[in-house]
Parts: sequence; structure tokens; C-alpha cells
Amino acid sequence: MVDREKVIGKMNNTSVSPAITILGAGLVGCLLGIYLKKRGQAVTIYEKRTDPRISKATQGRSINLALSDRGLAALAHIGLDQEILRHAVAMNGRMVHTLEGNTNFQPYHHEGKTIYSISRAALNLLLLQTAEQYDIPVHFDHACKQVDFKNNQITLTNQGKVFQEKYEYLFGADGAYSALRQSMQDHQGFNFSQQYLDYGYKEFHIPKSNENTLDLNVLHIWPRHDFMLIALPNNDGSYTATLFLRLKGKNSFESINSRSEVTQFFTQFFKDVYPMIENADDTFLQSATGSMVTIQTNPWVWHENTCLLGDAAHAIVPFYGQGMNAGFESVRLLCEALDTNNNFITTIKDFASHRILNTNAIATLAANNFIEMRDLVANERFLFRKKIESWLLQHFPAQFQTVYSLVTFSTMPYAGALKQAEKQQKMFDEMMAEEQISKNWESDEAKNRVEVIFYKYFPKD
Amino acid sequence: MVDREKVIGKMNNTSVSPAITILGAGLVGCLLGIYLKKRGQAVTIYEKRTDPRISKATQGRSINLALSDRGLAALAHIGLDQEILRHAVAMNGRMVHTLEGNTNFQPYHHEGKTIYSISRAALNLLLLQTAEQYDIPVHFDHACKQVDFKNNQITLTNQGKVFQEKYEYLFGADGAYSALRQSMQDHQGFNFSQQYLDYGYKEFHIPKSNENTLDLNVLHIWPRHDFMLIALPNNDGSYTATLFLRLKGKNSFESINSRSEVTQFFTQFFKDVYPMIENADDTFLQSATGSMVTIQTNPWVWHENTCLLGDAAHAIVPFYGQGMNAGFESVRLLCEALDTNNNFITTIKDFASHRILNTNAIATLAANNFIEMRDLVANERFLFRKKIESWLLQHFPAQFQTVYSLVTFSTMPYAGALKQAEKQQKMFDEMMAEEQISKNWESDEAKNRVEVIFYKYFPKD
Repeated sequence: MVDREKVIGKMNNTSVSPAITILGAGLVGCLLGIYLKKRGQAVTIYEKRTDPRISKATQGRSINLALSDRGLAALAHIGLDQEILRHAVAMNGRMVHTLEGNTNFQPYHHEGKTIYSISRAALNLLLLQTAEQYDIPVHFDHACKQVDFKNNQITLTNQGKVFQEKYEYLFGADGAYSALRQSMQDHQGFNFSQQYLDYGYKEFHIPKSNENTLDLNVLHIWPRHDFMLIALPNNDGSYTATLFLRLKGKNSFESINSRSEVTQFFTQFFKDVYPMIENADDTFLQSATGSMVTIQTNPWVWHENTCLLGDAAHAIVPFYGQGMNAGFESVRLLCEALDTNNNFITTIKDFASHRILNTNAIATLAANNFIEMRDLVANERFLFRKKIESWLLQHFPAQFQTVYSLVTFSTMPYAGALKQAEKQQKMFDEMMAEEQISKNWESDEAKNRVEVIFYKYFPKD
Repeated sequence: MVDREKVIGKMNNTSVSPAITILGAGLVGCLLGIYLKKRGQAVTIYEKRTDPRISKATQGRSINLALSDRGLAALAHIGLDQEILRHAVAMNGRMVHTLEGNTNFQPYHHEGKTIYSISRAALNLLLLQTAEQYDIPVHFDHACKQVDFKNNQITLTNQGKVFQEKYEYLFGADGAYSALRQSMQDHQGFNFSQQYLDYGYKEFHIPKSNENTLDLNVLHIWPRHDFMLIALPNNDGSYTATLFLRLKGKNSFESINSRSEVTQFFTQFFKDVYPMIENADDTFLQSATGSMVTIQTNPWVWHENTCLLGDAAHAIVPFYGQGMNAGFESVRLLCEALDTNNNFITTIKDFASHRILNTNAIATLAANNFIEMRDLVANERFLFRKKIESWLLQHFPAQFQTVYSLVTFSTMPYAGALKQAEKQQKMFDEMMAEEQISKNWESDEAKNRVEVIFYKYFPKD
């Protein structure tokens, strides 16, 4: 600890390049540390969990994340994208499994762009190793209990001992239940919202086996209107499946609570995949139910020299596969802003106040995508819209992109993608309301009308 | 404390008539205690502040509240309405003061119904005295630090001592910074939002004097678009004025910070009332700036036997004069529900889940009314809308009521009033968009068109 005190004492230059303290050695905390260390700043990380390389106990089953362009762009900046992709499995689209056991493939992109399934644990390990290569001290088993904004001091506990550490600039990358945010919450003027879905989730393992006949390079979905099962591939040929189900009511985690009810539920709704799942009944009955929360905060910066980042500032529901990607993009944009501005303090404040608009937008898009995934992907109207979409992509490749592409395969600000989503929704509603289009799609008249309506929303300049 | 333990032990009948513990001896906490004691339940109240009858120190300057039909209906139920009105001053409408010093009176109701200005301190004292008459123990200087939901136990501090008390049923009527709610907030599944206005407020005293030429039975407003001053009468002929101003930016509490700037600000914007205010400059420079927050929670009931009420559950901004009225109405509706249902626990759960819709609605109405008060009351378009409104009130007395009346002079559910507000907004927009109406209001054609549009929105059955 003595060295750190010296560093803080020496630098004493908070407006240009302060020493950095980061709470959280998860995905965003590690990436932020590496970015800032690379800029030449002193960085120290505190993490409440035990080092995953020492204690396997806290690891549990790997959870899969969908890594896409925004996340990759942030990793590329520190030369980690190719290394990380070696651990990932490409997914080309959604494989929809109907109740009857039929499948229907929906590509993510008309020219074959893909997203990547990667285990959270593997990604975190790679980032921790990189942080180590950059000589960033990561203090595991150090939980932050309180932040004293006036004295620039955090209270930490480690092995039952309680002590204080000073900070020059403090980042809270400590997740949806952030300690930094909890200290901010009690202050007047701090806007905060936590909204839970009335859905929970449980994860299941589908091992590589003779029964397992699932295609590898896709994201599997069993949409059942009120609930859904998904499965993402792992690079060992196994899959991690996640069941999203209501917490209460009919067909819920509360109502299904005996072995026979679980068997009946899976047999009725997921007949094809049920035999592939390892110990489905036991896992359902014994594993903890995860919850899903949307967190919105404003401002992210408090008392000039503390800032929330990642889930601590903007946790979202997982249905657009953008939680990690948004957090990584926040790190990239923040550090790019620092590279082109002199004042560290004001640059981060300006960055945060603007970035909030975009993280609020992806929160909305992610919540809406749950409805699409569990319901619309198996819906006639949705499939017809997809048909029109395909035609537009083919005929107006320069002017038209799907919202999914804008979110997933671009780095356009999320707020722009949300605006596009609203505009396209109106356009497709108008197209599908015309009988000429909906009743006679194969005709030239239908295509002419689609073109007219398209130009109304996307005028030639 | 021994007696209370005995009571809890004896009753042991939580589903019908549990012993009640209330946090907070403010307006809602006292009223709730009286209602429940009147029903025959054991009631104990803990209040973190000192007894206002002993310590004048915590009282400060009286803050005025606007008491109206919903609050009065709740007070009438325990026979307190007439007694309380003796301490109040009736207000018939808004007296709008222009920048030039002209005035313009807008009655609250076309048949002369009024609202009442009352001091919070006087009202609280009356309720405390009544609680005493009902033999409700009120423990002052007892702050709740934590709620242990599993063991039905609260941690209290009193004079430096920390101790635990058991509860059968616990209400949190402990205000916008509720200790009960803070214990709920850390739990998954508890939805919560705190949103601060970027406005603050400061209060001023206008003594009864020769300079004070303000009319008594009105609410005075000096609307200045981005900010406003209001003044409510006290029953000694003095007034309490409140300045609502941005916290930062041009014309804000931050930007006006010297004696000369305060003088210049008041001289420029509130020339007529400035000389009437007691020590305006000192008060502005030295008094604390109040903040305004909207708090929304869902659910209000946690672990079956704890429930938030009043500002703890649904704090709103003060611009519709409905904060206290909404809290009082919640108490009345809750106890009416208890009187017609047997199960205490489930009745409160059902009440709360339905009441939330209405408190969310008044939160929206209150936020919108700030814009009306500081801006529209002095706006040509708003005044024209008022003209049409008057004509409708005169010609369709059975079918049409103003939104203000529905909120203030009725006990219609707030959600219904909000729906009316949205419908009327559309109707007035349509009326004012017609040149026949806007350019030639005095003509018969204008009235005919108004009638046609009115029936479109309010059809004859």
C-alpha cells in the first residue's frame, strides 16, 4: 500500500492524469484498467471476489455472452480481439425451434456477418492476464463498503479487517449492485432507477453427445410466447441453455415445483431438446433463479472525481446481447475522449452526460427484443415483415439496414439505432396495413407500393 | 416496552388484526395510527425527530400546504376536518402577477369551491394531539436503522443506544427518505425510482404590514417561464412565499450568489412583492435550498407484513398541492378496504398493487402542473383555452369538468383524472387548431364548432 500512497503524492495532477482506483475486476473493470494504464496512468483495482485463477469455487458453470462489433472494436484497440475470438464460436443467425420440433433459420445479416458466443469466465481470465502483463495490481477479496466523497476515501474489508484507502479518481465498475452507486444513492440530486422483470432465468448444460444434434454455429431459440429457452454453443461442442420464465403465475418458476411438473413442462414445450439436457429436472429444481434488472443512473459522475461505468451505471436485460458490448464501448469512447481533451475531470463529465442517452436507448431496445425473441420470431406477421425487410436489403442496400445490424454490426450511437427502430416500425406498419402488399406479396404492384412507402420514410436526398 | 411485547404475544392473530408498528409520526403516520387504533388494533409509533411540542428547535418556519377534498375526506372520517379548517385559510383561485405588476385572477372552480392553506406544523400538532387522545404511544427520538424482514424485527437508536423491537405488521410512513424503503431497496425484485427536478426552492416570509397589499383568499403566483414565485396566506395575515428556481445555469441558485445579484434578480422579476418580503436578500443567501424528488416504488408490501405509505411509497413534486392529500387518501382507502375484507395481510397487498396506478398518475399530473404554473398561466394560448373551458363548464355542466376539479374537488381515482387530462388536451388542441374558433371566438360559428368537437370527445350516450 505504501507505493500507491507515494504515487498519489507524486502525481498530484488530478486534472490531467490522476492516479486511478477501480472497483471491480470484472469485464469492464479490467478493460478500463488496461486502457488507462496504456495511457500512462497509475491504476489499482479492488475486487470483492476471490481470484478465479486460485478459487474454482466461485466460478460455477460458464455463462455465455454474445460478443459483437462494439465489444470487438473496444478489444481491438488493445490488440486483444483476435486472441479472444480464438476462444469463441461464431453464430450466423437464430435457429428457431417450433413446438412441433421443426426448425427455421433466420440469419443475423444478409451478407453473413456473425456474432460470437464466448464464456464470461474465459473472457475475464484473458483480461485479468492482460492486466497482469500491464503490471496493474488487482487486489482480490477486497470489498468496498463505503465511499467518503468529501475525503476521497474508500472503506475496504479484507479477511475481516476494515481499512481506508485514499483515491485521486475512483471508477465504479463493480456491477449492477455497485458499492460506489450505493454510496451515491443516498445523496439528493442523484437520479436512480432499478426495474426488475417479472421473469427469472435458470441455466442448463447440454453436453457434446450422440443425442445432441443441434447445429453448432447458431443461436438456438425455442420461443413459446410467454417464455423461451435459448442455447448458445461452447467451443468444446457443448451448449449452455437458458430458460426465461415468469417468476409467478401459470407456467412459472413458482408454479412448477415438483419433478413430475418439470418433466411435464419440458415434455410439453421443449420435447426435441429435453433429452439432450444434462439433469434438466434436478437443475430446474435445485439451481438458483437469476433475476434481470434494468438500472439507470444520472449523473454517472459524482463529486467531480468518481464515476460509474458498465452495469453499475447502466445494467440492461440480456435480450439484445449488448450488456458487455455496451460496457466495452463505454470504455473505448471514454478513453478516446480523454485522448483528444486535456482535462481529465471535465472530459469524463462531458462523456458521461452524453453517453447516458445511448445507454438508455439500448436499455429500451433490449427490453423490446425480449418480446421479439420469445414471441415474434415464431409469428406470421413477424415473418412477413422479415420478407419485406429482405427485399429492402436487396433493393436498397445503400439506404436500408436492419435495426439488428445497426445495433450489432455497427458502432452507430445506440440512440440513433433506437430512432431508426421507431421509424422502421411505423414504415412496416404502414406497408403491412396495405392489402395490395399483404395479400399479394409476389405481385409487382406490391413491390411498387413498398417502394413508394419506403421513399416516404427514406427520401432520396 | 414490556406492555407491547405482551400485546403482541396475546393477539397472535396476524391475518385478521395484527398489532401495528408505524415508522414516522408525520402527517400520514399519525393519521394511519388513528385510523387503525379506531379499528381496535394495537398501534405504536416511532419517530426519529424530537417531539415538536417540546423542542421548538426542529420546527423552523412553518411550511404551508394546500389541503383539498381528498385530504378533507380522510380527516372527516375521524371527525377532524372542521377542527382543522379553523386553522386554515380558504383560497378561491390563483392571482397571477405579471412582470409589469398587473394582476389577473383565475378561480379554481366555476361555482366557487376552494382549497385551504394550512401550516404543516399546525396540522401535525393537531394529529399528534389526536393520537394522544387515542392512547397511541409515540416514541420520539427513535430512529429506525434497519429492518430485518426474516425475523420481523427493527433496529432502533435512541439517545445513542441501539436496540431491537419485534413487529407483527410494520408500516413505513417515514417520508421520502424512508428507512423501511432503504431496507427493501437492497432486495432483488424491488422496483424503485428516485428522480430529482433540476429545480430547488427557498422559502420567504411576508409579514402582515402596511406594505403587504396582497389579497388574502388566493394563491399568488409570479410565473416567469423558467422559474416562479408563489405565496400562500397564513391565518395571521402573513404569507409564506416559495421561490422555485433552477439549481444551475442562468438565473439559478448557483449563479445568483451575491447581495447585489439577489437585489437585481428580485427587482427585475418580482418588483411588486420584493419590498413586502422580510430580509429577502439574507434569506436567499443564507437559507438551505430544498430539493424536489419523485419517488416510485413497486411493490409497497414486502415480506407480507411490511408496507410503505405516503411519501415513503410515492413522493411527488408539490405543484398540484396533492402530496399530503394523496397520502391521506391512501390511508382512507386502505382502511376502507380493511373494513370490508377479513384478511389483513392480503387486503393490504391488493390495495397497494391497485393504488400504485393512481399514485403514479398524480406524480405525472404534478410534474406537468409545474410547467403550467410557471409558464402557461401567463401565456396567451393558455388563457384562450381557459376561455373555451369556461364556456364548456357553462354549457355542459353535467358532462364536463376541468382536470383541476377532478384532481382537487373530487375523489375520482387519479388514474381517471390523468386519462381525462390526456383526452381534454387532444380536444383543446383540435379546437384551437381551427381558425373559425381561434380567430373569431365571439361568433356563433365558433361555438357551433366547439360543440361539434366537444361531442366527438364526450359523446351523448
